Amino acid sequence: MKPIYFDNNATTPVRAEVFEAMAPFLAPDGGFGNPSSLHTLGQQAHAAMESSREKVAALLGVADPGEIVFTSCGTEADNMAVIGAAFAHREKGRHLITSAVEHHAVLHACDYLEKEHGFQVTYLPVDRFGRVSPNDLRGALRPDTLLVSIMAANNEMGTIEPIQELGAICRSAGVLFHTDAVQSAGKVPLKLKDCPVDLAAISGHKLYGPKGIGALYIRRGVQLHALLHGGAHEKNRRAGTENVPGAVGLGAACAVALKEMSTDEPRVRKMRDRLETGLMERIPFVFLNGHPTERLGNTTNLTFDAVEGESLVLALDQAGFTLKNDALPGLEVSTGSACASGLLEPSHVLKAIGVPMERIHGSVRFSLGHFNTEADIDTALDIIPKVVDRLRSLSPIWEDRQKEKV
Amino acid sequence: MKPIYFDNNATTPVRAEVFEAMAPFLAPDGGFGNPSSLHTLGQQAHAAMESSREKVAALLGVADPGEIVFTSCGTEADNMAVIGAAFAHREKGRHLITSAVEHHAVLHACDYLEKEHGFQVTYLPVDRFGRVSPNDLRGALRPDTLLVSIMAANNEMGTIEPIQELGAICRSAGVLFHTDAVQSAGKVPLKLKDCPVDLAAISGHKLYGPKGIGALYIRRGVQLHALLHGGAHEKNRRAGTENVPGAVGLGAACAVALKEMSTDEPRVRKMRDRLETGLMERIPFVFLNGHPTERLGNTTNLTFDAVEGESLVLALDQAGFTLKNDALPGLEVSTGSACASGLLEPSHVLKAIGVPMERIHGSVRFSLGHFNTEADIDTALDIIPKVVDRLRSLSPIWEDRQKEKV
Repeated sequence: MKPIYFDNNATTPVRAEVFEAMAPFLAPDGGFGNPSSLHTLGQQAHAAMESSREKVAALLGVADPGEIVFTSCGTEADNMAVIGAAFAHREKGRHLITSAVEHHAVLHACDYLEKEHGFQVTYLPVDRFGRVSPNDLRGALRPDTLLVSIMAANNEMGTIEPIQELGAICRSAGVLFHTDAVQSAGKVPLKLKDCPVDLAAISGHKLYGPKGIGALYIRRGVQLHALLHGGAHEKNRRAGTENVPGAVGLGAACAVALKEMSTDEPRVRKMRDRLETGLMERIPFVFLNGHPTERLGNTTNLTFDAVEGESLVLALDQAGFTLKNDALPGLEVSTGSACASGLLEPSHVLKAIGVPMERIHGSVRFSLGHFNTEADIDTALDIIPKVVDRLRSLSPIWEDRQKEKV
Repeated sequence: MKPIYFDNNATTPVRAEVFEAMAPFLAPDGGFGNPSSLHTLGQQAHAAMESSREKVAALLGVADPGEIVFTSCGTEADNMAVIGAAFAHREKGRHLITSAVEHHAVLHACDYLEKEHGFQVTYLPVDRFGRVSPNDLRGALRPDTLLVSIMAANNEMGTIEPIQELGAICRSAGVLFHTDAVQSAGKVPLKLKDCPVDLAAISGHKLYGPKGIGALYIRRGVQLHALLHGGAHEKNRRAGTENVPGAVGLGAACAVALKEMSTDEPRVRKMRDRLETGLMERIPFVFLNGHPTERLGNTTNLTFDAVEGESLVLALDQAGFTLKNDALPGLEVSTGSACASGLLEPSHVLKAIGVPMERIHGSVRFSLGHFNTEADIDTALDIIPKVVDRLRSLSPIWEDRQKEKV
């Protein structure tokens, strides 16, 4: 039985068009050349890279494909922006600003700079929906601030940050502005050339491309230290033989996203809304985490009171077993960031928006995608209330809660 | 007409077995899960990663697969070793030792540490065959030396370094020893568990695996700073969603290499020897660069006096055009490291072994591989002398040389 996949913010399936585009570059007789080689095979690979770079630039609304550097993942792109900017501009100062709800790729890069290299980092708070306040940013800027990094949309809740406004504040203060656009790219239109954004990170496997490839937009003129040093690849900005099939896959994924975003986004949003509303109608004591409207159309993060989130994830994965009905498919969801799964720490994102610790443990993220259907929503609306009911029936907390509410 | 590919040190074709192993992880219905996810799809991807890690460990002769960390390429693995060790051990000292013939992934990482972070680097000379002398290493060690990095085999000439001896010197001095094994892995047996090696880098696309994946062996207990910071992937040693298809491909490639190395290496070596001897017999004023015996079995680096290397690469690539015979295939070779192609700088490797500048410009690397056949050698021995002849006939230097020799 094929599972129903509601974990598209963790990773997406590779689309068939993407795989088809990549396959010739993974075939023994195909375009396996090294793009740095002078001979025909090498030059074919080089041309494929440049064509993909144009497709990435088109999705991001970048005028000049030369502003796109391929990386091995979103994390590398975020790290290159944060660490690369910090080292390159440390003469200006050693202060960075980010937010409390960033992905660990930004937070832990900042942490590393702070602990090991003498930088200082200000972590801006967010409101109860997860939004950074432009006023807070204004107040945090210092003469020695070298970089501000605020994500375009949050991976756990989907909350969209006011990037345009935040970027404009940085631009007028003469401070570099980076945005982690990993969850936004392919879901919401980005026109980086018209945005006061200097750096933006994306990841292939979040938009139906392959794992192992990402990209960093570097506005022309912005200086960074490279993270990887070696050959003169990517115009000396990222050493290492180019991942040609990966880059071709990312390009193909960007081209598909650009073409389909305007039809796919509302279709997915409609399903997400039906799931969200349906669950809140059918299950008592469910709370939405994240912004009601300024939110990615595919994401809903819900707290199920008196339920342990990890238990719910596992019980939904094994829904047939949980509900003693082998005909039921599993539902694949997560408690938050996949990158933090397996850690026992409660979500730093939900903590930052003020969700009480007990409720954080009962929170689950549903992130829909292109391959979901209305039938998936029907099935989910049938299964999830039953599974929650089953888990609550085993929970002493739930018993207490029932008494409280009576 | 399919070209004859003699550029396997630049990159290798992906073997069909490797592609087959990867394909399910690139299919929309396949194992596209995020290995960090708790649900079934995630755990399937996780299991695939661990199975691949065992295959990589087996090829490298490592007892514990937990000592293998997947990276995005050989350059990242080399950088992680060099930069990661430098930052992690800077309290001990700020001195590194490497050799003049290393790949740029090591040299430029050292250069970065020197220019931007106050480290000091000693570059050991090599003999005329490209070998580092153990005595030179002994003399260069200082109390503040934190790392020695010497490659297992050179990419441009194939010269094999005395790793066992160099490593033993480091071990008894209590200094970390890294080896760039990118060109050795899959070509010569490595038994890292019995070697005084603490760190070793490999790359997928040099051994018939995909581009975009590499690995670093980190002996248990060796401390490094991570290069990439974010999620807790790879046991906190390398953040970023795992490139599952890439890692599976690398694992499959390592398994094939382990199985076939003992038969493939002598077969390729025999072809290489026939090519090398044949060219030297058929063409006057050809000189071998690299060690006559302590050399990878697939590599020959030859200087063609009075020929411009890049012209020869292009003329061989277009052999049909060059020799006015459309029935001839192109020959794909290189002037040296692909990573340095396009740069106008002469090879630092050939400079280090004392080849005069004029001869460096006439040097070409032939690197054979699994897919080459004896028929390729026949064709090459027919075509190359004619192309060299043609280029020399246009060269004023050659005219002078002829007169000199009379």
